Amino acid sequence: MMLAELPPVAVIGEPVSMVDTPALLLDLDAFEHNLRQMAALAERGGLALRPHAKAHKSVAIASAQIAQGAAGICCQKLSEAYPFAAAGVKNIFISNQFAGPKKVAMAVELARQAELSVCVDHPAQVRALGEAAQRHGVRVAVLPEIDVGHERCGVADADGLLTLVDAIAAQPALSFAGIQAYHGGAQHISDWVQRRDVSRRSAELTAQFLRCLEAHGIRCSIVTGGGTGSAEFDVENGVLTEIQPGSYALMDRHYGSLEWLGTLQLQHSLFIAATIMSTARPGKAVCDVGLKSVAVDSGLPEVWQQRDADGLRYVGAYDEHGMLETGGDRRDRLGEPFLLVPGHVDPTVNLYRELVCVRRGRVEGLWNIDARGLSR
Amino acid sequence: MMLAELPPVAVIGEPVSMVDTPALLLDLDAFEHNLRQMAALAERGGLALRPHAKAHKSVAIASAQIAQGAAGICCQKLSEAYPFAAAGVKNIFISNQFAGPKKVAMAVELARQAELSVCVDHPAQVRALGEAAQRHGVRVAVLPEIDVGHERCGVADADGLLTLVDAIAAQPALSFAGIQAYHGGAQHISDWVQRRDVSRRSAELTAQFLRCLEAHGIRCSIVTGGGTGSAEFDVENGVLTEIQPGSYALMDRHYGSLEWLGTLQLQHSLFIAATIMSTARPGKAVCDVGLKSVAVDSGLPEVWQQRDADGLRYVGAYDEHGMLETGGDRRDRLGEPFLLVPGHVDPTVNLYRELVCVRRGRVEGLWNIDARGLSR
Repeated sequence: MMLAELPPVAVIGEPVSMVDTPALLLDLDAFEHNLRQMAALAERGGLALRPHAKAHKSVAIASAQIAQGAAGICCQKLSEAYPFAAAGVKNIFISNQFAGPKKVAMAVELARQAELSVCVDHPAQVRALGEAAQRHGVRVAVLPEIDVGHERCGVADADGLLTLVDAIAAQPALSFAGIQAYHGGAQHISDWVQRRDVSRRSAELTAQFLRCLEAHGIRCSIVTGGGTGSAEFDVENGVLTEIQPGSYALMDRHYGSLEWLGTLQLQHSLFIAATIMSTARPGKAVCDVGLKSVAVDSGLPEVWQQRDADGLRYVGAYDEHGMLETGGDRRDRLGEPFLLVPGHVDPTVNLYRELVCVRRGRVEGLWNIDARGLSR
Repeated sequence: MMLAELPPVAVIGEPVSMVDTPALLLDLDAFEHNLRQMAALAERGGLALRPHAKAHKSVAIASAQIAQGAAGICCQKLSEAYPFAAAGVKNIFISNQFAGPKKVAMAVELARQAELSVCVDHPAQVRALGEAAQRHGVRVAVLPEIDVGHERCGVADADGLLTLVDAIAAQPALSFAGIQAYHGGAQHISDWVQRRDVSRRSAELTAQFLRCLEAHGIRCSIVTGGGTGSAEFDVENGVLTEIQPGSYALMDRHYGSLEWLGTLQLQHSLFIAATIMSTARPGKAVCDVGLKSVAVDSGLPEVWQQRDADGLRYVGAYDEHGMLETGGDRRDRLGEPFLLVPGHVDPTVNLYRELVCVRRGRVEGLWNIDARGLSR
């Protein structure tokens, strides 16, 4: 006898309480609000918006962002870009370094399909890519990364940047398109004023690099960077030409816990649907969302209290179990559904096959997480 | 123009240094050593071995375990069991509670295909499953879980257990097959003697439950529990009839760091192949293995020093970046491949599509991680 297919996690039209769990829910009203907020912010500032697909990994979401005026997308890995290129996303920036012949071959393949730009911080990356691109007759735009305070990737000084600009100029198949100036740390500062100040210092550093390029007669058509946490300052600072926020569309407990004093007001649109599946111990319960269904690197998920979650607290994660304190002693809560807000959106989304899109309590659609697990 | 398929992560026959990264490598010699070690341990103790598939999620590994005499497998989630049942694994125990009609429907479907047994700790679970099983003409074996010190799931006392036994007896489509007595915490105690003592106390508690059942004329054909950390004590304690270790086949940094003073000597067989992709900062480097390629809930991965990793230390994880200290200042390490041992096997394996099987430095095969992401 053949085994039936695994049943779908949700059926369009059913109430959200009937969705199988664990499931990743997307509240479409909140999601659309977030898309409008960020598009309006970028437009007011006269900046291009290039949302980061590493947060959602979903062609449907990228398409919605592009339909609202996004200039293209960022991907963080070459393999991650494949489903977007295959789906017809025309303009893709790999906002991260890569090394080795297998990676270069992927970049060449992507450049056949899309307008590809990539990030570098070492002349050897430029040479390897340039030679392969020329051999295969494709063109790639290259943006050296500068370190604007994050201390991760990127050249630290103008000499390093000029070396990369020269290396790009020496490769006929490559073109210098501008610079990447991303401060990851700035995104996560809770205090709004402090976040603004760090973003401003990072913009000042970027401006120094730009002046040095200008002194050598080099113009940057693109200065890209910024993220969800810094976007409202990036549009004020007047240095970036393009922002690349990712988390803003979905949000998470961490971003939700930052201070937001400006006009950018984002909403939680991403939730994990969970079910209580053991109530054997007084005052405790166990749900079906553990480490394989929610990333805990930025803290545990939080029970969404705007639903009728009645005192539940998520206090610990095992591989497949989530430990709850119930604030009560009712064993009849077995089977009770509730919602969690994940601590960190990116690695959580990466655990799921699809997003269950809901509006006003009903399932409206299922969107694939096309680049799930594509980390090469 | 059509986009080419994403190239394979590895090609059979190529040297391991050519595998694309990040990749999950399985050292077949070490893996086969581990399988032999645990099979021999169970055999010496006269216990059945039912390896936990939640650790590897791979039909190929389950098949290798069954070929060496395993009695079947454990799964932790119903959806996780689907690919194993579809591949013909005949005997599957769901070693975890579940709740709700969609879950019950999955259990019924699995029971059509395999000899299914499940775990319960609430009479409502028994009723819901029993009624559905009868309606659909399938039989399910049921093992109540008892809490033997882990304080997670499972009934705390004999009354609770007897209530479940009665509830099972009231369902014609269900049969009482024994009990689940698993102490998760015992698995992770570093000190060998202390681990042995906690395992012994958990066996004594289990024996008390068994005596109470006997006093009511109830025999348990299966007493299942144990894991990688407690297995060598479980076979000595003489209470379990079956052990369910999972991590032993692959191991991880955490299990490797425990004290192992007995005959059970396991080896790291699971590695993550990584590549240095930025060397912009003196004394530091960045690799391509971040939070989406390695779980950090049990600590950061460790650079495998038996290869020529020359002083590398993994010191921090971002979504797609791994921060390294290099103990030197050579920018020419860009592109250098190296291996990591993940901190925690289960959620790390769940991030990958396949295992790249290697033996003596060459790729010997690619094994699917069939149940990746199946957490419902």
